[in-house]
Amino acid sequence: MPEPEAAATPGRESFGSRLGQAMADRGPLCVGIDPHPALLQAWGLNDDAAGLERFSLTVLEAVGSLAAAVKPQVALYERHGSAGMAALERTLEAAAGADVLSIADAKRGDIGSTMAAYADAWLRDGSSLAADSVTLSPYLGFESLRPALDLAAEYGRGVFVLALTSNPEGASVQHVGGSDSVARRIVQAAAAENTRYGATLGSVGLVVGATVGSALTDLGLDLGAVRGPILAPGLGAQGATPADLRKTFGTAYPQVLGTSSRDILKAGPGVRDLADAAARTLDGLRAA
Amino acid sequence: MPEPEAAATPGRESFGSRLGQAMADRGPLCVGIDPHPALLQAWGLNDDAAGLERFSLTVLEAVGSLAAAVKPQVALYERHGSAGMAALERTLEAAAGADVLSIADAKRGDIGSTMAAYADAWLRDGSSLAADSVTLSPYLGFESLRPALDLAAEYGRGVFVLALTSNPEGASVQHVGGSDSVARRIVQAAAAENTRYGATLGSVGLVVGATVGSALTDLGLDLGAVRGPILAPGLGAQGATPADLRKTFGTAYPQVLGTSSRDILKAGPGVRDLADAAARTLDGLRAA
Repeated sequence: MPEPEAAATPGRESFGSRLGQAMADRGPLCVGIDPHPALLQAWGLNDDAAGLERFSLTVLEAVGSLAAAVKPQVALYERHGSAGMAALERTLEAAAGADVLSIADAKRGDIGSTMAAYADAWLRDGSSLAADSVTLSPYLGFESLRPALDLAAEYGRGVFVLALTSNPEGASVQHVGGSDSVARRIVQAAAAENTRYGATLGSVGLVVGATVGSALTDLGLDLGAVRGPILAPGLGAQGATPADLRKTFGTAYPQVLGTSSRDILKAGPGVRDLADAAARTLDGLRAA
Repeated sequence: MPEPEAAATPGRESFGSRLGQAMADRGPLCVGIDPHPALLQAWGLNDDAAGLERFSLTVLEAVGSLAAAVKPQVALYERHGSAGMAALERTLEAAAGADVLSIADAKRGDIGSTMAAYADAWLRDGSSLAADSVTLSPYLGFESLRPALDLAAEYGRGVFVLALTSNPEGASVQHVGGSDSVARRIVQAAAAENTRYGATLGSVGLVVGATVGSALTDLGLDLGAVRGPILAPGLGAQGATPADLRKTFGTAYPQVLGTSSRDILKAGPGVRDLADAAARTLDGLRAA
């Protein structure tokens, strides 16, 4: 059972509290750091570890004081093996130095001591891959993520659990179960978990696609009750506008962290151009 | 749609064909390479990248000519960041040199170009992390794994998709949907996918816990129809005997690759002791 109150590492507030403050101060934008091969090429960078690092540090320079969070896409670093993961380590370190929250988009999930090892990698002080938060995948059950939920609470870090995504094939798992769907179970479990954070924004977030449309209402998902942040990928290149986001999430919109990647990144490699593109997206999110 | 027949990299047979041959020649045993902190300590090794590598190469030396496959647990390498991943790279390279098939237990899953990046990392010739096969997690839908399914077919590699696990919390996702459960959908999708491999053992395997008990029949899962390998973790330390495996999987038993980790690894660090423990497990699997 969740403890009533989680004590974060001394001197570090809970992730939810820190993210809520950043969203209030800067606006609800998360910029994806997605060094796709095609983007590296467009930026004149090599598709290697040095290119990944240069790409990532450029994005951080452009948006580090502007976005509430950045979200490096782990798969794109892993593609270059240990050298790519070393570039990710330097990216996460630079994000910490730039005073912007990091979300390692790793979608990890396992059970028992193996899940504890993933938690160690991404959420423990002293780990070279430690980020402010990490995305998790719950095919083995929400409760299988327990080691990460508890370690995050202990260290003032956070998690975002996949709940409902907008890719067409996602429904074949997430929508199953009718009024007691898989996605609804994940949402309810996150809500229960966030009671440990009291009145503050919880540190257990969810990933819900920006373009899920009416699925939220169709499946009866109460995101407001989650009282945690909602990471919503799909702004821009994937088709959602800030107005769509407002309409899709309704009263839960204040919890939503809109995430844009390609739509901002394609403005690079100029730092000023990237910052301008991010500022435009942020304006849209604030206005909605 | 799956193509009718997949052409593997010239000179390399399909993964399913290679695994089927290895199971016929050596018996249906996969040895987990799980460098847990407690095991490293018991073996007198440091909990660092050098310790991971020494541990892994010792297991390979002991079982590389005996087991059909080895399964490094990626989380335990990732726990040590890029240095740990470099140890995993050397482990996978050594496995290839030792002529034993490798299953990178990574449980990766994403969509679109991100999923393609994971496929590149684990399944593409030339990647430093390339393994003979990789485990995948289908919370985003079986079809979201398409880039890995196709790349595996192209390069004579394979995948094992999480289907039904024995951890108690797994049911909250996998059993949902009654007669059309999430687990059943995964099993059916894998069966459809393996038609591309014709009469040979397919290269799309499933992960099904050795201790799922009656859930297979309760949920109406037809593993025989999958015509692909079934990776069944849970032998030994997690409570299943070869006889249990035989009973649980019934007529699908010939497809089952029994996986044992701690029960064998605890016999280390002596190479002879490890090999003896693996041989005992193998005898049990053959007898059942």
